[in-house]
Amino acid sequence: MFETAELGRSIAKAEFKQMVPDLRQELLELQDTLHKNKRFPVILIFAGVDGAGKGETVSLLNAWMDPRWLITRAYDDDEDGDWNWPEFWKYWRDLPPRGRIGMFLSAWYSRPLLDRVYGKSNDATFVNQLERIVGFERALARDGALILKFWMHLSREEQERRLTNLENDPLTAARVNKRDWEHWRMYDSFISAAEQLVSRTNRGIAPWTVVEGTDSNYRSITVAKILHDAIAHRLEEDQNNGAKNKTAATGKKAKTKKGKQSRDAATTNGAAYQAARSITVLSGLKMEQQLSKVQYKERLIDLQARLHRMHLSAKSKNIASVLVFEGPDAAGKGGAIRRINAALDARNYQVHGFSAPTEEERARHYLWRFWRRVPSAGHVTIFDRSWYGRVLVERVEGFATEDEWRRAYAEINDFEEQLNESNTVLVKYWIHITEDEQLARFKLREKTPYKRWKLTDEDWRNRDKWDIYEEAVNDMVQYTSTSAAPWTLVEGNDKRFARIKVLETYCQRLSAALGEPAD
Amino acid sequence: MFETAELGRSIAKAEFKQMVPDLRQELLELQDTLHKNKRFPVILIFAGVDGAGKGETVSLLNAWMDPRWLITRAYDDDEDGDWNWPEFWKYWRDLPPRGRIGMFLSAWYSRPLLDRVYGKSNDATFVNQLERIVGFERALARDGALILKFWMHLSREEQERRLTNLENDPLTAARVNKRDWEHWRMYDSFISAAEQLVSRTNRGIAPWTVVEGTDSNYRSITVAKILHDAIAHRLEEDQNNGAKNKTAATGKKAKTKKGKQSRDAATTNGAAYQAARSITVLSGLKMEQQLSKVQYKERLIDLQARLHRMHLSAKSKNIASVLVFEGPDAAGKGGAIRRINAALDARNYQVHGFSAPTEEERARHYLWRFWRRVPSAGHVTIFDRSWYGRVLVERVEGFATEDEWRRAYAEINDFEEQLNESNTVLVKYWIHITEDEQLARFKLREKTPYKRWKLTDEDWRNRDKWDIYEEAVNDMVQYTSTSAAPWTLVEGNDKRFARIKVLETYCQRLSAALGEPAD
Repeated sequence: MFETAELGRSIAKAEFKQMVPDLRQELLELQDTLHKNKRFPVILIFAGVDGAGKGETVSLLNAWMDPRWLITRAYDDDEDGDWNWPEFWKYWRDLPPRGRIGMFLSAWYSRPLLDRVYGKSNDATFVNQLERIVGFERALARDGALILKFWMHLSREEQERRLTNLENDPLTAARVNKRDWEHWRMYDSFISAAEQLVSRTNRGIAPWTVVEGTDSNYRSITVAKILHDAIAHRLEEDQNNGAKNKTAATGKKAKTKKGKQSRDAATTNGAAYQAARSITVLSGLKMEQQLSKVQYKERLIDLQARLHRMHLSAKSKNIASVLVFEGPDAAGKGGAIRRINAALDARNYQVHGFSAPTEEERARHYLWRFWRRVPSAGHVTIFDRSWYGRVLVERVEGFATEDEWRRAYAEINDFEEQLNESNTVLVKYWIHITEDEQLARFKLREKTPYKRWKLTDEDWRNRDKWDIYEEAVNDMVQYTSTSAAPWTLVEGNDKRFARIKVLETYCQRLSAALGEPAD
Repeated sequence: MFETAELGRSIAKAEFKQMVPDLRQELLELQDTLHKNKRFPVILIFAGVDGAGKGETVSLLNAWMDPRWLITRAYDDDEDGDWNWPEFWKYWRDLPPRGRIGMFLSAWYSRPLLDRVYGKSNDATFVNQLERIVGFERALARDGALILKFWMHLSREEQERRLTNLENDPLTAARVNKRDWEHWRMYDSFISAAEQLVSRTNRGIAPWTVVEGTDSNYRSITVAKILHDAIAHRLEEDQNNGAKNKTAATGKKAKTKKGKQSRDAATTNGAAYQAARSITVLSGLKMEQQLSKVQYKERLIDLQARLHRMHLSAKSKNIASVLVFEGPDAAGKGGAIRRINAALDARNYQVHGFSAPTEEERARHYLWRFWRRVPSAGHVTIFDRSWYGRVLVERVEGFATEDEWRRAYAEINDFEEQLNESNTVLVKYWIHITEDEQLARFKLREKTPYKRWKLTDEDWRNRDKWDIYEEAVNDMVQYTSTSAAPWTLVEGNDKRFARIKVLETYCQRLSAALGEPAD
């Protein structure tokens, strides 16, 4: 989930300086409107890895906006035992009224996370605490609150570097304490609990944004932009609803127009930000990796033999498998699937390809057609395209509304959690190819008679949306790659390399499920 | 929670026979419209106590409606271990498409409940399973499904009678098995788990209706009416939304009007049903109970002394108390509160009266003004009127929308659960008086100079809404009386009797919390 926040996104100092004045001005204007019409409160949560800039961001927002209408609250975790009131009493007490912005540091997320990491709570209790939070945020959101949550992330190495830097500077040394280092040593369990925390509490009414915390310019602009857009969007919605209910709405409408113009200006201004955003999980792939024919043959025979053996063993232990293949057109999904099938007992696996849903399928929830094809105990089902269509093609083509595809992340996580719980190995592959490689393959298909049928006009049209798809893939990985159901990104420009990586990954996951030593 | 389903509501055979033809006709028409426009699926859940009529109701609906467009599914719990698929696979498989009605017997509620009752799962696991159900139903509801859930209830005695009757009739004897009697013996733990189940999964998107199962006529009409109204309401909503988006909507509008007329006819027809509904938890109170002055004095001194002692003991153990007083105007809340205060250390308790919220309070969530007054450890806070205003006065007067007051039940349960968890004794009193008694007290107030200020025009106006308030109180008890935070209904026509019952109840709850033997 957090791999999307280790991409090295940054904004250079000069560009940052150029962007800030406009952004500040707009934030101040929005804050003023918010304060004057007192329609709803804004609640911001800043949580994440120590040293990733939670405190700095809050300070910066205090400096950029009008602090009279801001409420900032931090709670000292160490004093938790001292509280004489029910835990949420202090959060209720400190809620901002309509028209103001409340900024909360960790707050209600702190104790559940620390208790889990320190082993003071078990998984079921942790989940209950997170559900309580969802209930709390839902109550506030339904009452009108605009809730935004930022998870500030750093890699383990980056966190070490940050803590060391802070310690070495006399001005900031006092901000690093023993506990920060203790947390750093527990990084892996911290991240695994955080993953569950973010995915369980990431609801449409109170969404998380995972923010890469390494570069402070990128971090600040990201938070400020999201805050800006969310408030502006909500004010506009409110105004439109208001305008509908009023007859003398001329003055109001003019105002909306002005608001739109200034926002458009800000968007143009954010080219550096857009450039930083365009770095995705896919940008980091080493697409030049390849295998020679000889290496390939050798590895293939070896892996297929191993898979065959493990497959029988999994069958006898009632361990099912679900393999998901996604990727651009012509990425080589079919070829990779055939190399897996060759190693399996044909009575025991099923391949399902998916395109547009049938009428029967459209009459039901979008997950229905996938649920009914889930394998029974010990069986293998391969999905050539899958439920991820909801957040890929349906998102990009507008077949699903924003509300629909956004809530799909949680629905998908829930679905996959149920597969995991029922003794199923779930492997999800994104087989990636570059734009150039796709073009080359399309051209080859045009020339090859027995491959020509595979190529449609739509395939060509989709190429125009390459960047939009890439953003959708990045979001998909961010919200649905969990430690229990991680995405495997496969460098697919070399088909041989891709096929071996696909087989290898499945073998590793199967052998882990069988309790065999990895070899 | 289930006391609202032990009120002896019934509909006589003659009236039932008179109501059925119209109701059937309307259900068939609705089913036809639903099937023709294929806008959404309807999902009905029937769960509850064995013998309360789940199966009979489903059979009846199959007889009353067009079975071609009905899907009925029951799942055999005994075969749970045999399933080769993830648990929810079969529920997904069996989902009705848009335009059809699916009726599910127990289904996804069966295993969590039985596991909890048989001690196979602990509380945290149970809650997790219920949250999974909420996630499932939410996904379906957001996709458009209309979900209605019926909890069929019987008292322990009534269940015994039903099972015995079924066994004695050769035609039905086979329907009773050893497990039914086993469940009957576990009645109390079954009900306590069911209470948690219903309250945790009772969401606006998929609400539970607790149905009194004793009288089959009342039960059948209740389910059919609710089903009828929900489908009609939803079709109308859909049509209105559709009409808004169309220009040539004249034909459609005429149709809506016709639908409305026939529904109105059905409502008039349902006088017997309305009469049955008007029996509420308050109807059952023995309002004539009273105490003589001598009995009262004796009990009062005794209870106050006991309360004083326990109060100090609770303080030393950091046990807090929250006392909630609700009831009609002039019910004697103030007098009862003063009798409690007299026994407490003044430094240690606080009385808060609530009327309309202030501007500061209105700027926040309605629970805010109550949360901030929650007692700290060891203290006592008395709420003279409370958060229940949301589902009483705000509901009746229209200050809260239906959506707002409906979701308040779950928010209130969540709030009270948090009080319970933080070492707080929570006692909720509804002090009840009859309409006549209120009138007598109002007249007395008018004549007594030092009481006259207490009486306002609004008090008189509220008397016109007596029945509507009574229905609101019944719903409030149904949805917020849980084993951890039960309502105490106090017969208040005799002030002495009421005050003693209030003191006694608080003493009992405190002594239980202190682990003292009840005396």
